Amino acid sequence: MLERINSPQDLKDLDKKQLEELSSDIRSLILQTVSKNGGHLSSNLGMVEPTIAIHKSFDSPKDKIIFDVGHQCYTHKILTGRKEDFATLRTYGGISGFTNKNESEHDIFFEGHAGTSLSSALGIAEANRINGVDSYTVVVVGDASFSNGEFTEAINNCNKKNLKLIIILNDNEMSISKSTGSMHNYFTKVRASKKYIKFKRSLEYHLSKIPGIGMGIAKFFKKIKDFFKRIFVKPSIFESLGLDYIGPVKGDNIADITKALESAKIRENVCLVHIVTKKGKGYTYSEEKPDIYHSIGPFDLETGKPLSSGTCFSDEFGKHLCEIAEENNKICAITAAMCDGTGLSEFKDKYPDRFFDVGISEEHAITFASGLSANGCTPVAAIYSTFIQRSVDQIIHDISIQKLPLVLVLDRAGLVPNDGITHQGIFDYSLLSVIPRVNIYSPEKYSEMNSLLDKSVLDDNISVIRIPKGAEKEYPHFLETEYTDDMDIEYTVNSESANVVIVTYGRLSEIAHGAAEKLVGECNTGIVKLVKINPINFAKLSELTKNADIVYVLEEGIRAGGVGEKIAYNFCNTDKKVLVHAIDDYVVHGKMDDIMKACKFTKEDVVANIKKELKAKRRK
Amino acid sequence: MLERINSPQDLKDLDKKQLEELSSDIRSLILQTVSKNGGHLSSNLGMVEPTIAIHKSFDSPKDKIIFDVGHQCYTHKILTGRKEDFATLRTYGGISGFTNKNESEHDIFFEGHAGTSLSSALGIAEANRINGVDSYTVVVVGDASFSNGEFTEAINNCNKKNLKLIIILNDNEMSISKSTGSMHNYFTKVRASKKYIKFKRSLEYHLSKIPGIGMGIAKFFKKIKDFFKRIFVKPSIFESLGLDYIGPVKGDNIADITKALESAKIRENVCLVHIVTKKGKGYTYSEEKPDIYHSIGPFDLETGKPLSSGTCFSDEFGKHLCEIAEENNKICAITAAMCDGTGLSEFKDKYPDRFFDVGISEEHAITFASGLSANGCTPVAAIYSTFIQRSVDQIIHDISIQKLPLVLVLDRAGLVPNDGITHQGIFDYSLLSVIPRVNIYSPEKYSEMNSLLDKSVLDDNISVIRIPKGAEKEYPHFLETEYTDDMDIEYTVNSESANVVIVTYGRLSEIAHGAAEKLVGECNTGIVKLVKINPINFAKLSELTKNADIVYVLEEGIRAGGVGEKIAYNFCNTDKKVLVHAIDDYVVHGKMDDIMKACKFTKEDVVANIKKELKAKRRK
Repeated sequence: MLERINSPQDLKDLDKKQLEELSSDIRSLILQTVSKNGGHLSSNLGMVEPTIAIHKSFDSPKDKIIFDVGHQCYTHKILTGRKEDFATLRTYGGISGFTNKNESEHDIFFEGHAGTSLSSALGIAEANRINGVDSYTVVVVGDASFSNGEFTEAINNCNKKNLKLIIILNDNEMSISKSTGSMHNYFTKVRASKKYIKFKRSLEYHLSKIPGIGMGIAKFFKKIKDFFKRIFVKPSIFESLGLDYIGPVKGDNIADITKALESAKIRENVCLVHIVTKKGKGYTYSEEKPDIYHSIGPFDLETGKPLSSGTCFSDEFGKHLCEIAEENNKICAITAAMCDGTGLSEFKDKYPDRFFDVGISEEHAITFASGLSANGCTPVAAIYSTFIQRSVDQIIHDISIQKLPLVLVLDRAGLVPNDGITHQGIFDYSLLSVIPRVNIYSPEKYSEMNSLLDKSVLDDNISVIRIPKGAEKEYPHFLETEYTDDMDIEYTVNSESANVVIVTYGRLSEIAHGAAEKLVGECNTGIVKLVKINPINFAKLSELTKNADIVYVLEEGIRAGGVGEKIAYNFCNTDKKVLVHAIDDYVVHGKMDDIMKACKFTKEDVVANIKKELKAKRRK
Repeated sequence: MLERINSPQDLKDLDKKQLEELSSDIRSLILQTVSKNGGHLSSNLGMVEPTIAIHKSFDSPKDKIIFDVGHQCYTHKILTGRKEDFATLRTYGGISGFTNKNESEHDIFFEGHAGTSLSSALGIAEANRINGVDSYTVVVVGDASFSNGEFTEAINNCNKKNLKLIIILNDNEMSISKSTGSMHNYFTKVRASKKYIKFKRSLEYHLSKIPGIGMGIAKFFKKIKDFFKRIFVKPSIFESLGLDYIGPVKGDNIADITKALESAKIRENVCLVHIVTKKGKGYTYSEEKPDIYHSIGPFDLETGKPLSSGTCFSDEFGKHLCEIAEENNKICAITAAMCDGTGLSEFKDKYPDRFFDVGISEEHAITFASGLSANGCTPVAAIYSTFIQRSVDQIIHDISIQKLPLVLVLDRAGLVPNDGITHQGIFDYSLLSVIPRVNIYSPEKYSEMNSLLDKSVLDDNISVIRIPKGAEKEYPHFLETEYTDDMDIEYTVNSESANVVIVTYGRLSEIAHGAAEKLVGECNTGIVKLVKINPINFAKLSELTKNADIVYVLEEGIRAGGVGEKIAYNFCNTDKKVLVHAIDDYVVHGKMDDIMKACKFTKEDVVANIKKELKAKRRK
């Protein structure tokens, strides 16, 4: 059936059986592709039928469909002309795992962060009003985003008439980790409320049958009816806030969903359609453990088992934090809906009283930490680097100004492979190094991370520990290295005599060693690996580069405001040439090797750049 | 009566009459002080009685009282040992206009930004639980903060038992501007609901009197009762989200408020006490126009008239935006509850269809702008510099990555006088210059601002126009100046020949001219005023400094990631000495002159620094 679908228009006349067949085809394609390429599986399996219904009811791209986070858009991509390319999902040059403006006119934004969809949709809808354009704006959003602050700010701005704005709640009872919080509990109640409503209807019926009710109380009786009406018609939080509400509707019934959407189309108010989907639907393993298959690498379709495994920074962090927390009962762990992702599952099980998953609430997470910190606890917040962009004001206002300690573990710091443009952890250093009292560390090895963690939980300042996605790498050091006493810098012992010194941090050290090896005969290359990248120990760095003509900064982060600029600022008015090799723009998705190459983070590139500079020096 | 109150303990035994007298005394003190020093008047006048009730019911500082935003804490300060110093409110070295940890153990945090209180209170309360401390945590929060995203994130995390956490809603129907949005409408309904509840009680009574109700329907009748109970006991959004709710209580009745607080103390759930206060209460002028007196400079107590007036950047911006919008009907204005503050009142009246006050929702404001921008409109968002710290992720994720245009007018950029530490606009440059596609401008004059605005609304990139609090300054230019053709730089014509060049931006240019005058005879001083501060036109800057030995960067912003670092990075490996005179830490409140002096932004300091460097150069 999928063969016959080349655009959403082809859906319009399909009958029930054909739609079922199509759903099944799409589900197979998603399973085949994700098992090979990795990706967001569970939510996409649940969204097959609702997405078909949406494209049946609306007229994309005239009507604009906006996917919150953008990770549940696989069926949307398959239906909008990308089924052939779908096999390239998340590969370099291939289809992105999120909505992507560059791919299709059906993708309105590059999405990737949670809770933004309704805000941008309100903008789209208001612009339609201002420009006199008559079309719908449709937001597809998971239940976990409903407790996100930006999303509720947008809900607060939905009290306008005739915006032709429809919110489709994909309620699968799950964010990246199991949903928590009041909004989650509320949805659970709403789902359970169908029985209650049924009872109330019967009550109303029986009331009308009460014998002996005289004329004198007829007025009262009318009021009772109105009163019931109020309750039946306005049961939800959303209706209290001025939205219309339809649901809950079962997420595997295309006809029911379509009916609900058609009803939503004719509302004056912004209308919320509540669809209950089953995360992981149609694949035994993901139905059983939807959180494991939320975002997964390649796996064996038969057995459901991941193809690769092994250690990673996140797990090692979680393990070591448990060890410290055993002796130090002030330590608390905070995550923002990324318990598994940040390796905190063991902590959650071992110390439930000191574990806090606050939901997709990065702002709250940090200010909450400030309260713990102000009152005698030692909060360790683990958040993805790309999402800490949400907490900049809180780190300034609620931690730094207050002179409170905080340990912040930034997972997925630096380049992130397959998620792409919206998920790169390349801004955190430039943003956070601006803030007084912030120390930033970039460990390359588990052992470095662990000792930084030991030190940080005792520190009065803000300690930011950046850890990359994936495992530490074993590679032979080309040159003999030493650490400074405080372990803040690891350097090759030849540095002080070297005429070229590569200054780097984190996993790019491997490339620095590779480059140094290739440069033998060209120059004497020293390597300085900064473990503490803010503030930088410039006294030691000056010593280590005292004979260097060229200081080559190799930086897995954005150039503006980065380590390279800080080093150049410090070496200003010396005769050293400071070259900064950093990232200048957003980086797309692909395998780690592919995007490293795209950023020219290879030993060949480093060697070529240094040779060029040496040649220029000689010419002078 | 106030004479007898030296600590909250002294309140405990006062009778009704004495409390009324005390309220009146406090109100007088607030009015006297604010009319002299300026400050937040309206909300504080409304909070006199509720604050007395809070300190009667709770035991500060054992119980921790946290004020959202912190601007409604005047009575709290007066009651907690600061009545004598209260006359120094908002002056340098005096009492802060916000809660301030350095002043008193009764102030738990430096507060200043909205919506953080419940998050930090949750942290305090959880830490009490973890540490086995038995005391209350009390949050005092205005209705406008309830629609702020961080606050709702915190509400979502309030579903725990026995936290001894009480939220006091100060509902005065007003944020900085008149409140808008669904949450505001909801509160209006709740306030109006008292009549309805009264009717329902009477209905319940009369129902019980219905004649002829036989035994057979007794069961149904019981269910009706339960049903009513549900409605009476669970009327509010907050109860749907698992909080207890008490109110609304009248805000001028200390006895009623105390009763409500005592009832809140014994709840298992987090409890919300809804108090309806009258903003500006007790002073005719502020009762009539509470928004004018929300935050006001010194005024005449007799007439209510402000002592100073005149033009300011905000008003000139608003006026000019109206002019452009007349011809360009795509232009929309967005503010986050700061319509008056950012000068947009005229725009609001003239173009209501293109004006959006989204409430205290800086995250939503930016993503909403992205929707407008993506769909053919030209959004101009006006937000205070200190609050744009809330929108960093949105500017990255929803504007920059999407390659969408946006005009961002940052009001109160640079140093802000009397509000102090939490309100300084000193981070915006360092944070935003990190982001690809961001142009940043720092006009010194209205005419510069206006032409930047003309240019920016046609630009495809992100244009950030930073305007300071207050008016442009007229002063004689000591040296003749010229602009570059694109108006991005204004420079003194002697610059190319000067051996010392001061590079600066915005209002510090006046100090640069003053310094240049004083340096006559010492050196030939050129001045380069950057109007466009990111990216900097380094080709032109190099030309203008080609004979300079000393480049002195004078910067009204934080050093880390600032203009000075960028310039030093660019001049790295030249023989110019780059000296950066910027801000290194948080700046407290005081008159503009006082804090300028505290940051050493005086011509005398600049002269001394340059002389010192000249001497060092000569010695070499």
